[in-house]
Amino acid sequence: MNNFKVNKDIPMPLYYQLQQTIIEKINSGIFEENEIFPTEQVIIKESGLSRTTVRQAIDNLVNEGYLEKRRGVGTFVTSRKRNYWDLEKLRSFREEVEMRGSVSSTKLLFIEKIDSNEKLEKIFGEDIKKFYKLERLRYRDETPVILVTTYVPMNYAEGLEKYDLSNNSLFDILKKDYGVKIGYAEKEFRSNIVDKNDANYLDIGEGAPIQKVDTITYDEKGIPIEYSISRDRGDISVYKVRLNYKSE
Amino acid sequence: MNNFKVNKDIPMPLYYQLQQTIIEKINSGIFEENEIFPTEQVIIKESGLSRTTVRQAIDNLVNEGYLEKRRGVGTFVTSRKRNYWDLEKLRSFREEVEMRGSVSSTKLLFIEKIDSNEKLEKIFGEDIKKFYKLERLRYRDETPVILVTTYVPMNYAEGLEKYDLSNNSLFDILKKDYGVKIGYAEKEFRSNIVDKNDANYLDIGEGAPIQKVDTITYDEKGIPIEYSISRDRGDISVYKVRLNYKSE
Repeated sequence: MNNFKVNKDIPMPLYYQLQQTIIEKINSGIFEENEIFPTEQVIIKESGLSRTTVRQAIDNLVNEGYLEKRRGVGTFVTSRKRNYWDLEKLRSFREEVEMRGSVSSTKLLFIEKIDSNEKLEKIFGEDIKKFYKLERLRYRDETPVILVTTYVPMNYAEGLEKYDLSNNSLFDILKKDYGVKIGYAEKEFRSNIVDKNDANYLDIGEGAPIQKVDTITYDEKGIPIEYSISRDRGDISVYKVRLNYKSE
Repeated sequence: MNNFKVNKDIPMPLYYQLQQTIIEKINSGIFEENEIFPTEQVIIKESGLSRTTVRQAIDNLVNEGYLEKRRGVGTFVTSRKRNYWDLEKLRSFREEVEMRGSVSSTKLLFIEKIDSNEKLEKIFGEDIKKFYKLERLRYRDETPVILVTTYVPMNYAEGLEKYDLSNNSLFDILKKDYGVKIGYAEKEFRSNIVDKNDANYLDIGEGAPIQKVDTITYDEKGIPIEYSISRDRGDISVYKVRLNYKSE
């Protein structure tokens, strides 16, 4: 069981090779989050590397946030707080996060009234002239995960700006106070690179990957009631779907 | 209808502002692929910019591949050949591509026999010791779109290396010649940055976004028969899903 193989014939420092091997195992799920990590002794034995080399690799991984030392217990794989979304049912961010035992919160960055534009006309038709535009940042525990821009036709939700949209779900407000009956949503997923402004809010580097999710939500009659463009952190967000094989 | 608004008060060249406005409109679908693009005259009138400025912006967009001039017809929005996947049913790449009127092709880069490893043991169990590993590059028309690594337990498909895996669907071979009854698949989507090797095959720059799709396919009895890791070009791949609102 040589789990920590390095290649002594290539011109790459051994501690660095070991580090990369461990990162791969974390990213591929072989070492799971919150799982105890093998001791220095085990790694020395399985890799054939010196104590200095092994220690350097582990220290670097702790500094980079892949591993964490818990006093008196050992070294653990850091919880990366992957955020899983099951694409089975239309659920709100809060529902998905809380289903998995974390705490969700939302910060309203702004709400404003805007005129329609070409994109909104394509979705909502030309008769709707005014929209609320909301910008919200959503957190899982303390980590910013999603930045979302939402458009709601003003005639469906007159007075929306008076609500506390940091502490109340938009869907709940639409349902309870505006009598909207939510039917279904169409989503499109694209892998993209974050822009400078969003990187700042999401606390990730420029050039980091995001999942761009465009959603149009319809009511029970098939009338569009909301359009949103969500930028979800690529290092955190995972979308799961189960597909049945088509009958032929 | 000022569709091409620029701001003369900010220190950014006007042709560049115009260019960015047009790119946004293409990316957001306001100007659709293969659609005729407004003439120079129209843009001059709607933007209030000079002929030189408008021409410079359009020439740059042609050079960057956003627009194309068709002799005697006009300027068109270049077809970006977006590849749409409906996450409704489990379909093969070929089926999805051909449903939308394009031609799919596949190039087998290699097939080899490998021993199990930790990740494969987690999926297929410890009893399966040998796997075929395939590396395939998939094209939509002439464009490389997907690079996919596939693992198939050898005992399910002994002799697989004798097939022409560039011109035959793996699923078709498994079904027809090995009697596998495909049941369902579980997929996970993550937004990621391409690595150097993959960038080369997919003909995209380093640092470009990809959609990493992990799939485990099961037979009708729920036994895993295939595991694949697909890297799909982010500039091309769009995944669509329709979700019904959960009843409460």
